Amino acid sequence: MKKLLIATTALVAGASAAAADVTISGYGRFGLQYVEDRGGVLATNTENTIISSRLRLNIDATTETDVGVTFGARLRVQYDDGDAYSDFNTARFSVGYEGLNVQVGNVDTAWDSVGLTYNSEMGYEDSSFGDAQNGFYAYESKGSVGGVSGGYTGVAATYSIADINLYFSYVDPNQYVKDLGAGVDEEIGLAADWSNGQISVAAGINLSSAGVKDNDDYFIGAAYNFGDGNVGLNYYDYNTAAGGVSDSSQVTLYGNYTFGATTLRAYVSDWDRANYDTAYGIGADYSLGEGARLSGSIQSGFGDAAGNNQGTRADVGVRFDF
Amino acid sequence: MKKLLIATTALVAGASAAAADVTISGYGRFGLQYVEDRGGVLATNTENTIISSRLRLNIDATTETDVGVTFGARLRVQYDDGDAYSDFNTARFSVGYEGLNVQVGNVDTAWDSVGLTYNSEMGYEDSSFGDAQNGFYAYESKGSVGGVSGGYTGVAATYSIADINLYFSYVDPNQYVKDLGAGVDEEIGLAADWSNGQISVAAGINLSSAGVKDNDDYFIGAAYNFGDGNVGLNYYDYNTAAGGVSDSSQVTLYGNYTFGATTLRAYVSDWDRANYDTAYGIGADYSLGEGARLSGSIQSGFGDAAGNNQGTRADVGVRFDF
Amino acid sequence: MKKLLIATTALVAGASAAAADVTISGYGRFGLQYVEDRGGVLATNTENTIISSRLRLNIDATTETDVGVTFGARLRVQYDDGDAYSDFNTARFSVGYEGLNVQVGNVDTAWDSVGLTYNSEMGYEDSSFGDAQNGFYAYESKGSVGGVSGGYTGVAATYSIADINLYFSYVDPNQYVKDLGAGVDEEIGLAADWSNGQISVAAGINLSSAGVKDNDDYFIGAAYNFGDGNVGLNYYDYNTAAGGVSDSSQVTLYGNYTFGATTLRAYVSDWDRANYDTAYGIGADYSLGEGARLSGSIQSGFGDAAGNNQGTRADVGVRFDF
Repeated sequence: MKKLLIATTALVAGASAAAADVTISGYGRFGLQYVEDRGGVLATNTENTIISSRLRLNIDATTETDVGVTFGARLRVQYDDGDAYSDFNTARFSVGYEGLNVQVGNVDTAWDSVGLTYNSEMGYEDSSFGDAQNGFYAYESKGSVGGVSGGYTGVAATYSIADINLYFSYVDPNQYVKDLGAGVDEEIGLAADWSNGQISVAAGINLSSAGVKDNDDYFIGAAYNFGDGNVGLNYYDYNTAAGGVSDSSQVTLYGNYTFGATTLRAYVSDWDRANYDTAYGIGADYSLGEGARLSGSIQSGFGDAAGNNQGTRADVGVRFDF
Repeated sequence: MKKLLIATTALVAGASAAAADVTISGYGRFGLQYVEDRGGVLATNTENTIISSRLRLNIDATTETDVGVTFGARLRVQYDDGDAYSDFNTARFSVGYEGLNVQVGNVDTAWDSVGLTYNSEMGYEDSSFGDAQNGFYAYESKGSVGGVSGGYTGVAATYSIADINLYFSYVDPNQYVKDLGAGVDEEIGLAADWSNGQISVAAGINLSSAGVKDNDDYFIGAAYNFGDGNVGLNYYDYNTAAGGVSDSSQVTLYGNYTFGATTLRAYVSDWDRANYDTAYGIGADYSLGEGARLSGSIQSGFGDAAGNNQGTRADVGVRFDF
Repeated sequence: MKKLLIATTALVAGASAAAADVTISGYGRFGLQYVEDRGGVLATNTENTIISSRLRLNIDATTETDVGVTFGARLRVQYDDGDAYSDFNTARFSVGYEGLNVQVGNVDTAWDSVGLTYNSEMGYEDSSFGDAQNGFYAYESKGSVGGVSGGYTGVAATYSIADINLYFSYVDPNQYVKDLGAGVDEEIGLAADWSNGQISVAAGINLSSAGVKDNDDYFIGAAYNFGDGNVGLNYYDYNTAAGGVSDSSQVTLYGNYTFGATTLRAYVSDWDRANYDTAYGIGADYSLGEGARLSGSIQSGFGDAAGNNQGTRADVGVRFDF
């Protein structure tokens, strides 16, 4: 009736089976999410508290050739609350050899992959107003619900040596046309991170972020691990060609402290954009073991002139990896 | 060329692998389905006999924490003949600990899960006019082909102790709004069943069935196992706020008898609704072993004033589980 | 974090697990594809060279009954560059017993399955102008991106005995209607192939190809294996009821030669249709072991009066099976 599969790399010990395999991994999360004035301050029929959930499944297929080069491909299906169905995204192909990994298609971008940048996240949904507020391309998790263009195509590379990781990515918003149109350009990202376990630093450059010509953004971050916890600072400089986020910078200070199964988290993020306030959050995780945890957070956004993001949001729920 | 695979729980014996796994299970079925006057008595270009088929795949991912709590998530893809493609439905999340299982999202409802209620089904498609004829929410198997609303969200719980199962479910047709609109309400279901192997009883209450305010329905059933077979009686009381099924009750008497690999089945169902006749069916299964069977049935529906459901339908085909 | 997995048939050694299993197989490929005057000679904003890619995943579920009959079902998800998402196609069901395999639903057709017919293909995308140029039904790989009709239903059978394979297929473009409409008919295919390892022959008949009434097509092919390579000739006779491909024949001569990890390939195909030239191609594969290869080709199409297919196309990339 049920069959399953499963398991752990130990199963693939047999030599003949080692060449190719298919794995399914991912995570599930669900809980309560509160957003003050969800849908805007004028919304009258909107619930502020909902059950927010996500199920992510990655299907990874790989083949290792005789000389040790590994070819791989990934499809992902991701359901989020509010979706009426789930289907697969677009494919990511990869070639790996020792420390070098090259990706083609729906690639992981440098800006999205570099270390430290998401370290202020908290809650079971791993969110933070301290994350970079610019628009940028990233691996696209959703299928037809997400609305990616069919021509979106990237090439990316990561290289790891000793404690250093180097990231490069190039994304063409539409590989089928010669002229992308006015104001549209390929996004190019370069990044690097380094850590000796105690001190970590990371930096990145993103040119024409999200394909908007001349939207050039910069990131530098550093963190210190003092054994039971971490403190870190991320600095972003956004240069918008026109309108939108505008020419601004953002600095996020964060820290966490672990005792036993509990981790406390906090951050404060300042965005020097007109009419935007300082955002902050506090949260806690409780580890349930085996990749599962209970998490919660209370966060307060930057706010803006239109009345959005200015209230409080809170979440409490569970996340489990598989 | 082909790789993945599969297996049996024995594979998960290793301690480190036990925490998380992903399984694929489901069934396939195909055969001939005859429906007299398919498409209505006025249809002239409709085939009464078709190849009717279904393929159902469940992907279940689970993680068991250190203290024995199991978190799980399911996606299903289901193809039925006539579909032009197949995609995943919406996710169901669960938390289990000993006899208690709590679900969130696309949940199994109490009315749909209680014992005995589907016991008059027959044929390779497991159909019966003796099933409950009211509308009600159930686990939604289909993705975009099925047309579920994105806001549909439930919470359900089952508790099993000794020979008793208790079921509770709550479904909000749209969790994102405060006011569901006129005539729409959350569906609440409560049910229980008990069996000592010889005698089984089951009962259920469904309030605002399928989200139609004040459509309150009731079920009670009992069955007796005499060794080589079973006889049972299911009674349904439907209370429709206005129109539709109308205020009516339904009683279904069914039985089956097994000798060797063959099981014979029969039922008769009476629905005391104006212009509706008594429905009945006879069928047989032949077990092929290992979860596969050949099945067939001939059934006659209730009929109605509009000329629907009044003819004969028959099916013969195979079903196999995996 | 990652779990599932994998394996090899050795895992299913346990008797109780042997009955049912689910496997995932498929292939990935990506590389550069050049098409002269892509989009037509008048297109001005079209890139001739793109990254062309495909990821194909087959999910196969099977159950073997006590007497050795195997029931199976397949769903496939296939992503091709340009797709904005990926979903599953329609299901194929099968019953197998010794040399006989019967399929229902989205079946493999005789014309598409017979040996030799695709042997002139080359490049990492396995393409050839020497393939049959008529329209015909085949197993449909794509879901909603592909646009299959929901009523499309086939029945097919293959029988293998000694060195002979026999193929039969019947496809109803819409099983739900009695009258398919003017000019539409069920496609019926019959084919056979035989090989003793040195000499191979194949032949096929396809009546009302692709459901176009009286589009009857014929194929005969032969090949000779001289140890380090093969030469072969495929002959097609197309009889179009009206318009389209018109009444024409096509002959394809091909060969390949292997030394070490390298295979060289060439073909020339002549299509005696007005305004169509002779097509040809040369290509090479370099085996990377374990089902992976680097391949490239340069091909020149038939050309036509409208200026399509008349230029050169080339591809170079990698394909890996899993």
